[in-house]
Amino acid sequence: MKTRTACLLAATALTMAVPASAQFAKAEDAIKYRQGALFVMQQNFSRVAGMAAGKIPFDAKVAAESAAVAEFMSKLPWAGFGPGTDKGDTDAKPEVWTQKAKFDDYAKKLQSEMGKLAVAAKSGHLDAIKSAVGATGGACKSCHDDFRAR
Amino acid sequence: MKTRTACLLAATALTMAVPASAQFAKAEDAIKYRQGALFVMQQNFSRVAGMAAGKIPFDAKVAAESAAVAEFMSKLPWAGFGPGTDKGDTDAKPEVWTQKAKFDDYAKKLQSEMGKLAVAAKSGHLDAIKSAVGATGGACKSCHDDFRAR
Repeated sequence: MKTRTACLLAATALTMAVPASAQFAKAEDAIKYRQGALFVMQQNFSRVAGMAAGKIPFDAKVAAESAAVAEFMSKLPWAGFGPGTDKGDTDAKPEVWTQKAKFDDYAKKLQSEMGKLAVAAKSGHLDAIKSAVGATGGACKSCHDDFRAR
Repeated sequence: MKTRTACLLAATALTMAVPASAQFAKAEDAIKYRQGALFVMQQNFSRVAGMAAGKIPFDAKVAAESAAVAEFMSKLPWAGFGPGTDKGDTDAKPEVWTQKAKFDDYAKKLQSEMGKLAVAAKSGHLDAIKSAVGATGGACKSCHDDFRAR
């Protein structure tokens, strides 16, 4: 029993020494954080994607603003995927942590595509936006296919 | 020329007449959006506030980054408080919509304080950060006291 407690304490100390998880008071907060950031990103991206698809009337100003917010948001969720945040109210597959390098590559790819989308939206050219929306949507999908349970 | 101006004005009026909720496919999305944005803001603000209170070791770089994210986030939740988003899984009091001018003033005040906090955090001066954290926390509290049910 003593050994178990010692091990638990050591494990806790280890967890607390890890910077990413230390950003959040508890794992639940990290999960809520990444979900909140992804949702805010998705809502802004969807607005631009809706315009690109002709489902929402094209408004260059709104598209540029929404894409800028989506780009900013694309940088945030990853801090919420620290060690010890794999359990709880989450659709993230265990592979997020067991195939971390691959997951990180997808995260970088998404940020890069969101950056290009923001530039395209700022230009106001609908054709450029359509093309960037396609590439960005592809980056979302690749990651969801491999790392999100549904 | 007159006709074109008239058309432009009419178009602008139309755009502006579209309720904020129209930015979201459904009221539930607007609620999730504002809650997600507020949570991401709060987590970043709390990190800086924790440093200001000496509960988290002061790290100037992390403080500046967190305050910058909190400032950005402080601009986003308000779009999610459009007409028709008062029912559902929300702690927002009906007063958000019945005393809209007051609510908007609080929202502006928060954004202003968050802006000052970001400047203070960028300066790296802990005393300036402490003072700005106090003012920003006060802006959070005023609004929660009047507009959030608990």
